[in-house]
Amino acid sequence: MSEKQAGGRGIQSIEVGGALLQALAAAGRPLALKDLALAAGMTAAKAHPYLVSFSRLGLVEQTSEGAPYALGPFARSLGLISLQQDAPLQRASAELAGLAQALDMTVGLATWTEQGPIVLRVAEPPGPVHLSLKLGAVLSLSQSASGQVLSAAIGWDGVAALWQRAEPTLTEAEVKARLAAVRRQGWARSDESLVPGVSALAVALGTLGATPLRLAFVALAPREWMDARLPGVVQALQQAAQRCAPAAS
Amino acid sequence: MSEKQAGGRGIQSIEVGGALLQALAAAGRPLALKDLALAAGMTAAKAHPYLVSFSRLGLVEQTSEGAPYALGPFARSLGLISLQQDAPLQRASAELAGLAQALDMTVGLATWTEQGPIVLRVAEPPGPVHLSLKLGAVLSLSQSASGQVLSAAIGWDGVAALWQRAEPTLTEAEVKARLAAVRRQGWARSDESLVPGVSALAVALGTLGATPLRLAFVALAPREWMDARLPGVVQALQQAAQRCAPAAS
Repeated sequence: MSEKQAGGRGIQSIEVGGALLQALAAAGRPLALKDLALAAGMTAAKAHPYLVSFSRLGLVEQTSEGAPYALGPFARSLGLISLQQDAPLQRASAELAGLAQALDMTVGLATWTEQGPIVLRVAEPPGPVHLSLKLGAVLSLSQSASGQVLSAAIGWDGVAALWQRAEPTLTEAEVKARLAAVRRQGWARSDESLVPGVSALAVALGTLGATPLRLAFVALAPREWMDARLPGVVQALQQAAQRCAPAAS
Repeated sequence: MSEKQAGGRGIQSIEVGGALLQALAAAGRPLALKDLALAAGMTAAKAHPYLVSFSRLGLVEQTSEGAPYALGPFARSLGLISLQQDAPLQRASAELAGLAQALDMTVGLATWTEQGPIVLRVAEPPGPVHLSLKLGAVLSLSQSASGQVLSAAIGWDGVAALWQRAEPTLTEAEVKARLAAVRRQGWARSDESLVPGVSALAVALGTLGATPLRLAFVALAPREWMDARLPGVVQALQQAAQRCAPAAS
């Protein structure tokens, strides 16, 4: 989360409790009360009544009394409903099949989460043999093409916590320099990070007003094939990205 | 949300604020401050500071000052992360391709949200011509096979609010009788509710301890084809559902 201060007076306990949801989302797995409280910077005694209320709402759940806290069914509903409401996402999904056909490559749509980029949609080319991309997979923040272009699009403030956890040996200046280079170039490529011999090329979808769309197109191909067709693939992804963003409302 | 009282002392403002998130999720579209406050049963003046804090967390967002409130990027993250953590869902997804191949039908996986059943995964049969099911589509609560089996699996307390909104002319007793009939039968079928001449058959995935899994398999076929193969389709979906649930942890 960025530290942006939305205007006006808030409710302190919403923000205190929200830190528990953020910590649970960032962990990416169920956490015991004491670990969850620690991750959110509070005591277990302070965290517990918030978790009782979140359980009543369905935002968190335990499979049994004393079991670790997981995200609950209402958390899933919020996500699915927000995906449906997202106009740029609907437009980007509609571009995917055409991109896969035109490039004769597997093309995916990745989105940003508290854990890093996640594969949200996949379209495969018409031929009998093609590379695959797993729906719901979490991609590497620093090694995947999607991780790099999404980080560059969102900017340091929005990605700092995740980078510091994933790449503790990199300094803030080093990461900022890498992201600035990706932003100038307008695309990122990764070789070998998924499968030996396979290249991925990603382009971020731009912004809606001042807000980055947190979506990226990614194309997959054998490395030699990507080498030979790089400018055409970049251009096709960038043109599709431009078609998705401008009419956003 | 059911009114289940998770044990222990909660935080009142989490539950007051949670009503705003529930109202926004149930609406399924962005809402202006006054409409959102009304839907949650509070005044705009009371709702506003909660929304300020939810905006800081990224649970809600506005495209500009004064614009309607939509679910925000952190709401999306929560949903995607909870989907990844869900062991029964991962097992059910792994069954889909085999079901589509064995039945030679399009098979989908629907899940329950505050708006009703949503199509979460789809697998298509190998042949060149097949029916399709749209990822992310919201299915009818009362007319779709998935809506009926999921409502029956979750039970009246968990679905009452949605049924009362979707089918205001049905009494509680009428809905309960329909759900009890579906529960006894173990599957539901809908004809014509999606496309004329097309039948859908759905089976819910059972429970994890006392908690319904909120997932259903659905198979699609032309009506005559479904008529001819009904027992085999029911059996295949029920066997796949049984493979998903028991090892749940």
